[in-house]
Amino acid sequence: MRRYGVVGVGAIGGFYGARLADAGHEVHFVARSDTDHIRANGLGVESPLGDIHLDGVSVFSDAAEVPPVDVVVLAVKTTDTDVALPAVAEIARRSADVDIDPIVIVLQNGLGVEAQVAGALGRATVLGGMCFICSQKVGPGHIRHLDYGRVTVGEHRADGGAAGITPAVSAVVEDLAGTGVGAVGIEHLEAGRWRKLVWNIAYNGLSVLLDAGTDELMADTGTRALVEELMWEVVAGAAARGVVIEGDFVEAMLRDTETMIPYATSMKLDHDARRPLEIEAIYAAPIAVARAGGYEMARTETLYRALQLIDNGAR
Amino acid sequence: MRRYGVVGVGAIGGFYGARLADAGHEVHFVARSDTDHIRANGLGVESPLGDIHLDGVSVFSDAAEVPPVDVVVLAVKTTDTDVALPAVAEIARRSADVDIDPIVIVLQNGLGVEAQVAGALGRATVLGGMCFICSQKVGPGHIRHLDYGRVTVGEHRADGGAAGITPAVSAVVEDLAGTGVGAVGIEHLEAGRWRKLVWNIAYNGLSVLLDAGTDELMADTGTRALVEELMWEVVAGAAARGVVIEGDFVEAMLRDTETMIPYATSMKLDHDARRPLEIEAIYAAPIAVARAGGYEMARTETLYRALQLIDNGAR
Repeated sequence: MRRYGVVGVGAIGGFYGARLADAGHEVHFVARSDTDHIRANGLGVESPLGDIHLDGVSVFSDAAEVPPVDVVVLAVKTTDTDVALPAVAEIARRSADVDIDPIVIVLQNGLGVEAQVAGALGRATVLGGMCFICSQKVGPGHIRHLDYGRVTVGEHRADGGAAGITPAVSAVVEDLAGTGVGAVGIEHLEAGRWRKLVWNIAYNGLSVLLDAGTDELMADTGTRALVEELMWEVVAGAAARGVVIEGDFVEAMLRDTETMIPYATSMKLDHDARRPLEIEAIYAAPIAVARAGGYEMARTETLYRALQLIDNGAR
Repeated sequence: MRRYGVVGVGAIGGFYGARLADAGHEVHFVARSDTDHIRANGLGVESPLGDIHLDGVSVFSDAAEVPPVDVVVLAVKTTDTDVALPAVAEIARRSADVDIDPIVIVLQNGLGVEAQVAGALGRATVLGGMCFICSQKVGPGHIRHLDYGRVTVGEHRADGGAAGITPAVSAVVEDLAGTGVGAVGIEHLEAGRWRKLVWNIAYNGLSVLLDAGTDELMADTGTRALVEELMWEVVAGAAARGVVIEGDFVEAMLRDTETMIPYATSMKLDHDARRPLEIEAIYAAPIAVARAGGYEMARTETLYRALQLIDNGAR
């Protein structure tokens, strides 16, 4: 059984970490303010997959106290990456010191998040994981999982190309699948990231700007048209980077969202909770990558500019 | 002294109509719900140019009761044009019946507003007037003028070309200037309309979407950049229609707005008062004209789509 070090005990790290521990893996957590509370009261996850309560959790405020692990999970919002990255690097370094080839998996939204992590590490295999999940932290060491949970995992390559289904990808997919959430490997991580952006760029920002659910955005002809235009802009942005997204993918996304239960986007939840918005990872990064490839994501940038003001005002 | 028929007794019609009457012109008004109130209590304008109170106002609910006039003023929001246009046509027709060549002046925001009016009229000279004014209706027959007041007047031509300073333009400019507000004639009405859109497209929509004043939009680097990008998009849209706006005009607009007293846009005032937004005249019309000329105003359209949802929700 592989050993895990999970940095961040929120909606993502708390959920997947607890499930890995419940499945028998040795799991160590790094928390910020919740360490004492979790030590005293354990870590609880309510979930339609079955509730979990872990007692005697191995949780630290200082990453230097985490024992060596096989896999380090970065599970904080991209807006907290700068704060969490030293802990990830510390755990990876200490694991490498005892001759483990550490795997680091980045469970975050957006584009370019693995490159930022890889740049801060020495010897390490860096994976990206995209979580399709409705989950929230409702209190210290208390996670409420509402629906979904599937993770798509791919290996990062510095040149952005396809790494294939590597041993590291297979290993982490096997462990996640063993916890009862769906997990699947993908050959080309950056392509997967762009595909996820098709949805995230279209819905996240508008849901915040217009204080609207996906159902409302789809019911209005104007915003429905804008959603579709934004999706095509992401497809064109990906193409400028050499990533092909098939034309029927946009249609499928629109159809899926129309038949979905009305859904508050992660950015809307962040906004409602007065948390910083992940606009750099979800908007600024793909805009910059597309521009470097000669394509201007004008509509996306319009949203990004407006979201900046909202984000600055909330901070 | 020319006789005037003013359709709409709000912030614009009430203000300019009262000033024309105060300057000695015969002015008849057409109101909707305020007719009885104005007949009983008169029409009052508070203004830094001097307060005006008119008693015994000639005001009607039915345009058929308005005597023949030389100039008909359409002074309702573009969202009410459909309701007001029959009154304008009726007054113009009855004036033409007694061998007056009626002038109709459209005091509205946006693009294409004169063409809509001209299409509803028989024989008439149609002018457009662009008001730079802070004024609001605070109650029936009660207008509060806060600042500015200058009107730019040009003559409409069906082909959108420059009509020059025609006798009709000179006549109306002379009358308006005689009331103490600034008034100036322009040779090319559509060029003037596009120039005004540079400001209106950039600030009106963002102020509503982001619930922000012009000062806040200029203080944030993201929205300041977006404002400038939107202005350039309007310049490009105008160019697609063959209207040249000099490059330094954008810089001047930005500078002027930065040094301006913080200013709530007319669309923000409409939104705060839960009135319909003038998004068709200010956004949809120029987007369509630019597209017909082969240019896509992508950022402008993004705002328009988002504003549609807000407008639909408020109606």
